[in-house]
Amino acid sequence: MEVIKTIKEMKEFSSQARRAGKTIAFVPTMGFFHDGHLSLMREGRRRCDLLIISLFVNPTQFGPNEDFKNYPRDFERDRKMAEEVGADVLFAPEASDMYPSNHQTIVRVEKVTQNLCGRSRPVHFQGVATVVLMLFEIVTPHAAIFGEKDYQQLVTIQQMVRDLHMRVEVVGMPTVREEDGLAMSSRNRYLLLEERKAALSLYRSLQKAKELLQKGERKAERILHEMKEIFQSEPLVKIDYVQICDAYSLQDVNQIEGDVVVALAAYLGKTRLIDNLIFHAL
Amino acid sequence: MEVIKTIKEMKEFSSQARRAGKTIAFVPTMGFFHDGHLSLMREGRRRCDLLIISLFVNPTQFGPNEDFKNYPRDFERDRKMAEEVGADVLFAPEASDMYPSNHQTIVRVEKVTQNLCGRSRPVHFQGVATVVLMLFEIVTPHAAIFGEKDYQQLVTIQQMVRDLHMRVEVVGMPTVREEDGLAMSSRNRYLLLEERKAALSLYRSLQKAKELLQKGERKAERILHEMKEIFQSEPLVKIDYVQICDAYSLQDVNQIEGDVVVALAAYLGKTRLIDNLIFHAL
Repeated sequence: MEVIKTIKEMKEFSSQARRAGKTIAFVPTMGFFHDGHLSLMREGRRRCDLLIISLFVNPTQFGPNEDFKNYPRDFERDRKMAEEVGADVLFAPEASDMYPSNHQTIVRVEKVTQNLCGRSRPVHFQGVATVVLMLFEIVTPHAAIFGEKDYQQLVTIQQMVRDLHMRVEVVGMPTVREEDGLAMSSRNRYLLLEERKAALSLYRSLQKAKELLQKGERKAERILHEMKEIFQSEPLVKIDYVQICDAYSLQDVNQIEGDVVVALAAYLGKTRLIDNLIFHAL
Repeated sequence: MEVIKTIKEMKEFSSQARRAGKTIAFVPTMGFFHDGHLSLMREGRRRCDLLIISLFVNPTQFGPNEDFKNYPRDFERDRKMAEEVGADVLFAPEASDMYPSNHQTIVRVEKVTQNLCGRSRPVHFQGVATVVLMLFEIVTPHAAIFGEKDYQQLVTIQQMVRDLHMRVEVVGMPTVREEDGLAMSSRNRYLLLEERKAALSLYRSLQKAKELLQKGERKAERILHEMKEIFQSEPLVKIDYVQICDAYSLQDVNQIEGDVVVALAAYLGKTRLIDNLIFHAL
């Protein structure tokens, strides 16, 4: 596996690969890999001739009071994991190369970024859309693999690619969970023992929603009510939102008819976690 | 020359050309070609194996009270001119294909679009940046040719390409003028006879600026003063702006030191014309 640190070299590598007729799978990450990342990488490995993984903790997708500085980093561990999964390139650019002084271009996906996490993280998705577009220009992938755990991010990237007529295929992969059900996240390592226990109520509430949906409940309000009862028994959980939205527009629904996402975000102490359930009502 | 009307076919053409190792020059236009367009096309023809011209009157770069509906159109004439200049493809997509319902992604270049035309046309440059990025994704050019007459547009596209790490080379070509000096523009055809005469004062004022600069004048204020005196003798000319700006940041300068652009916009009746002069002070 090659470690590439400059945009120039990464562009040259991908140009050469394209000229040689190779297909490129791409997994953009912020590092500190867990089994969720590995499932994306394995899917990329399976799909294309070459697998390129980027590792870049993107400053522009963090708000001023968020955890950019403390975001967990361990390059040596990540490098080994990427190598073991069979990646061809680990691309780890510098922020000063990605955003040289005088950088001033922003990509905004408007409607699908307004609701859910967009409410409490107003600059997050324009940071994500911009950096992902930049990475796509540098890496020129045929397929890019994202996790469904960050569901609004996945929808945002799919919408951007469609709107801008980009050629990359955007692939979503199911959330990978710990044995007890907690969605894997690099941020789980922030959790204190008691918080880790309380965090399981996020998964339990989604399981409750699934059970109700499978029984035929179609009133969002009733499902949300039962989910909130579960959190009320967990004083360490401060809910940011729990919503049921159309799976593509991400607008709230009352009467559930088509595909929906039951999505939530919550604080455990200072740690903000998200999780969701995708349900096909038809 | 092939006329292509769908994005799908255009993508297939450019993919195939790229796979065959051909280089692509691209001239994006809104049609109603004049000698200015032809000079861009000839430069594209000279630079690459293939020349692709797009013809698309992009609705999103017009403000609500601007001339989108009345913008001059003559497809048959444009088709012939593109053919004569030796284009390989004239790409003329439908707005409904470029912007399907639910389109919601916008590319904004922030600082260089604030001054000059950005003041009176607040949505113009995000419309331009977005459509040009879309066209670049569809056409995948090696080089894209723009006119210096739309100088702020050229700087905006150059900034966008640099910021997003795109691979296309953006080439600017000198303004082509009528025999008497009026900058060629598709909008010149709107001018009534008296307006056409008065419009020449735009060129005369830029010639005056050039003369002063060549004599060594470095105070922007003094140059602008003399330019304004020229317009004051033309009651049909309503100045929108006359400014001297740094040629790259497009911020106003007082003391002229490096490369500058002397830029102006004016109304003649309902017709808004722009022109500029690029001057290298060092």
